[in-house]
Amino acid sequence: MQTKILLDEDAIPKAWYNIQADLPSPLDPPLHPGTGKPVVPGDLAPIFPMELIRQEMSTQRSIPIPDEVRDILRLWRPSPLYRARRLEQHLKTPARIYFKWEGVSPPGSHKPNTAIPQAYYNMKAGVERLATETGAGQWGSSLAFATALFDMECTVYMVRSSYDQKPYRKSMMQVYGAECIPSPSPRTAAGSKVLAEHPDTPGSLGIAISEAVEDAAGRSDTNYALGSVLNHVCLHQTVIGLEAREQLAMVDEYPDTVIGCVGGGSNFAGIAFPFAGDKITGKHPETEILGVEPTACPTMTKGLYAYDYGDVAGLTPLMRMFTLGHDFVPPAIHAGGLRYHGVSPLVAKLIHDGVVGASSYHQNEVFEAAVTFARTEGIIVAPESAHAVKAAIDAALECRRTGEERVILFNNSGHGNFDFSSYEAYFAGRLIDYEYPADLIRESLSHLPKVG
Amino acid sequence: MQTKILLDEDAIPKAWYNIQADLPSPLDPPLHPGTGKPVVPGDLAPIFPMELIRQEMSTQRSIPIPDEVRDILRLWRPSPLYRARRLEQHLKTPARIYFKWEGVSPPGSHKPNTAIPQAYYNMKAGVERLATETGAGQWGSSLAFATALFDMECTVYMVRSSYDQKPYRKSMMQVYGAECIPSPSPRTAAGSKVLAEHPDTPGSLGIAISEAVEDAAGRSDTNYALGSVLNHVCLHQTVIGLEAREQLAMVDEYPDTVIGCVGGGSNFAGIAFPFAGDKITGKHPETEILGVEPTACPTMTKGLYAYDYGDVAGLTPLMRMFTLGHDFVPPAIHAGGLRYHGVSPLVAKLIHDGVVGASSYHQNEVFEAAVTFARTEGIIVAPESAHAVKAAIDAALECRRTGEERVILFNNSGHGNFDFSSYEAYFAGRLIDYEYPADLIRESLSHLPKVG
Repeated sequence: MQTKILLDEDAIPKAWYNIQADLPSPLDPPLHPGTGKPVVPGDLAPIFPMELIRQEMSTQRSIPIPDEVRDILRLWRPSPLYRARRLEQHLKTPARIYFKWEGVSPPGSHKPNTAIPQAYYNMKAGVERLATETGAGQWGSSLAFATALFDMECTVYMVRSSYDQKPYRKSMMQVYGAECIPSPSPRTAAGSKVLAEHPDTPGSLGIAISEAVEDAAGRSDTNYALGSVLNHVCLHQTVIGLEAREQLAMVDEYPDTVIGCVGGGSNFAGIAFPFAGDKITGKHPETEILGVEPTACPTMTKGLYAYDYGDVAGLTPLMRMFTLGHDFVPPAIHAGGLRYHGVSPLVAKLIHDGVVGASSYHQNEVFEAAVTFARTEGIIVAPESAHAVKAAIDAALECRRTGEERVILFNNSGHGNFDFSSYEAYFAGRLIDYEYPADLIRESLSHLPKVG
Repeated sequence: MQTKILLDEDAIPKAWYNIQADLPSPLDPPLHPGTGKPVVPGDLAPIFPMELIRQEMSTQRSIPIPDEVRDILRLWRPSPLYRARRLEQHLKTPARIYFKWEGVSPPGSHKPNTAIPQAYYNMKAGVERLATETGAGQWGSSLAFATALFDMECTVYMVRSSYDQKPYRKSMMQVYGAECIPSPSPRTAAGSKVLAEHPDTPGSLGIAISEAVEDAAGRSDTNYALGSVLNHVCLHQTVIGLEAREQLAMVDEYPDTVIGCVGGGSNFAGIAFPFAGDKITGKHPETEILGVEPTACPTMTKGLYAYDYGDVAGLTPLMRMFTLGHDFVPPAIHAGGLRYHGVSPLVAKLIHDGVVGASSYHQNEVFEAAVTFARTEGIIVAPESAHAVKAAIDAALECRRTGEERVILFNNSGHGNFDFSSYEAYFAGRLIDYEYPADLIRESLSHLPKVG
C-alpha cells in the first residue's frame, strides 16, 4: 500500500517548461505604465537581471536549470507525491487522489522554487542585495532563505498588519539573516507619503510593492524580486508539475483533473502548466484543469479580462489579466496569499482560452476540508492550500455519485504551522463567509486604466 | 553532489531493535513506589495495554512492527538522511557530517514514531481514549495526531505556562480532534489540590503527569501514554537509527561519532541504540556515541546514577537512572524538551557502562549553532535539536584541527516552527547562560528516595 512516490535527486528537472512556447496565440505584451507602449527589456533592467528579463519574454519551450540552482533544490526536491488513500477511504470515493507536497521546503511552501533561481541570477549579475515585499510572509521568508544560501543581503517590506500579527514569519527572516521592515516605512518616499497622511495605516501589499521597487530602483547594488504573477516566476514553479507527471507515470497514471489554489497564480502554474501544455498540444486534450479561489476575492470567476496595474499605486507595467481592479481591497479572509486583485497573465490567458477552469469557495467550507484532511492524511495545510484540498474533495465526492474512477491531482502548496490562529478562529465560529463583494468590485473596476 | 539519501517505503524497518537483548548485564528493575519491590506486569495493567508492558520488559532482540503501524509510518518514513555539505564547507572541515531529519513528520518531530504504535496497541486492546501530559506540546500534538488516525479520543494535560505561551501547539491538537486542558485543572484530585493551594501556579510537567495518570487510572475506557523515558518508547524510536545505518551503508559509510540531544532520552535512543548495539557486540567497538544536554539541566553530566521517581509527586515507579532529584526544577531555558530531572534508564545504563558519553552546552552557543545551520543547510531546528547541531559542529571543528576525516552522524529531531520566540530572545540578547545550578541540585538530590 504505497503512500509516497519518491524520485531521486537526479530526477530534479534539468529544464523548466515554458508554456509560452505552446500557446495558440502569443501573450498580450505588458505595457509601460507611463507611455502605454509595450515594455522592452531595457525598461525592466533597473530592477531585474537580464537573464530573468529574457525568461520573462522567452518563447523557448525548455529553459535549462543551472546546476548551482539544482544543487540547492536538492535540499528538499524532488518533493514527494502522495496518494491520499486515507482520505479516499474516508470519502468512500472510487477516485484516486494524489497530491504534490510542497510543504517540505525549509520555509514550508512552494515559494523557494523561484526564490532560489531569482537570487542565483541576481548573484551572477553581480547584484549584492534584493528588496521585496511580503504579505503574510511566505514569500519574504523564502527569499530570505535563498539569499542566505547565496550570501546576499535581503530587505523585506512586510505589510504592517501582518508584521504585527504574524511575528514568527519576521523571526524566520531574521534567522536567515534578512532585514524585515514594517510597511509603510519612513525609509522610502512612497512609505513616508502614506505615513504622513495615515500614521496608523495597517499597510497593504500595494504599498509594500511600491516601497520595495523604489528601494531597488534607487540603489545600484540592489534589485527587486517578485514572488508570483510574472512569467518567469510561473516558469520556475513548473518543477512541481514536471516532477508530478513523472511520479504519476511511475505508477502508470495520468491525471483526469489537476487542481491548484490561485492567488497571484504561481503555485497553480507550477502544478498545471505541464499538463496544460499536454492539453493544448493534443497529447491529453480531455484533462480538466481547475484554479480555485476564495469567493471573497473572486478574480478569475468575477473579474474582467483586461489590462490593469499589478499594484495599487500604478507603478508596475500594465498587464492583461483577470482583475477586480487594482484598488480592490478584498475582505479580510484568512487565506492571505489569495487576496490579490489580479492573476498571472499566463494563467489568465489559459482561462480566457478555455484551457483552464475556475471555481471559488467560502472560507468555512475550506477550513472544514482542511480539518478532514488533517484527521485522515495527518498534514495540516495552509489556508491557501486548503482551497485546493476542498476542490479535490468535491471532485472525489462527485466521483462517488457518478461511479467514475477519476485520477485527481492537486498541489498541496504549503503547511499551516503559521496559521493556527486561523484554525482557532474557524473552530470558534469567528470566520465570516463574505458574499461576493459586488459593490466593491463594481467600484474598483470603474478605475481600470484606459489602454490603447 | 548527492544531498539526501532516501529509502523506499518498503525499507521502513519491519522490527524494532531492543537493546535490552545486548546489554552485558540486565537493567535494574523498576520498583513499586509503595512497596519498593520490583514492578510486575499487573502493576502497570491499569494504565498500559499488555503488549506495551511486554515490550517494556522484553529482552527479545527484534520486536516486529505491525503492518498497521508501518502503514501509518509511511506518511513520512523513512525519513531522509542528509549529507550536510554546505555546513562542512562553511566549517572547512575534513569531516563528513550526516543528519537524520525527523522534522518531516506531520507534527514536526520524532515523537510520532512512538505515538503511532502506542495508540495502535491501545486501540487493539479495546481502549477508546488516551490521556497524557505535555510540556512544550511536541508530545501532546503527536499523540493527538496518532489518535486521530485510529479514531480514538485523546486528552492532553498541558503545563499551564506552555498552554498560555505556546497557543499554537494547543491549536494543532484541536485540529487533530484532541482535547487540551491547562494543567493543573479542576478535573482531577491532583490538579484540584494544587489549584486550591496555588491558584496562580504556572504548573509543571510533574503535576501534569499526575493528572494524566489519575485520569487514566480512574476510567475503564482510558489508558495513559508517555512520550519518553520508558523502554518501549526508546524501542519504538529505533527506526531512526536502523534507517540511518542502512542509508549510510548505501554510500559505504559507518559513523565514527553518533550524536543526539537528551531530555528524557527517546530521540537519542532512537539514533544511538542500533549503533550502541554494534559497539557492545564488538562489530564496531570504536564508535563514539554522545548524548548532549543543557548545562542548566545537567542530568547526565552532574546527576547521580540512582533510583528516583519519574515525577515530582512520586507516583511513578522508581527507576534507576541518572537524576538531579525528582523535585529539581531547572532554570527556564528555551529547550523545554530537555528540562527533565532524569533520563531513560536504558540511556543511563549505557552511560554508566561507558558505552555512551555525555556533554553539555549553554543555550547561547546552542542558538548560535542553530543559526549557522539555518544559513548553510536552510533548516531551522528546534532548540532541543540545536544541542545536537552544536555538538556535531564542535566534533567537525575538532577534525579540522586534527585533520581526521571522521564520519559524524547526528539526529535532527524536529523543526523550530513553534520556537521563533526563542530565536527572537537569542537575537535580542535576552537568553541567560545559567551556570551549573549546584545549590539547587544539592538540595534536590538530598530528597532522593531511600531504596532497598
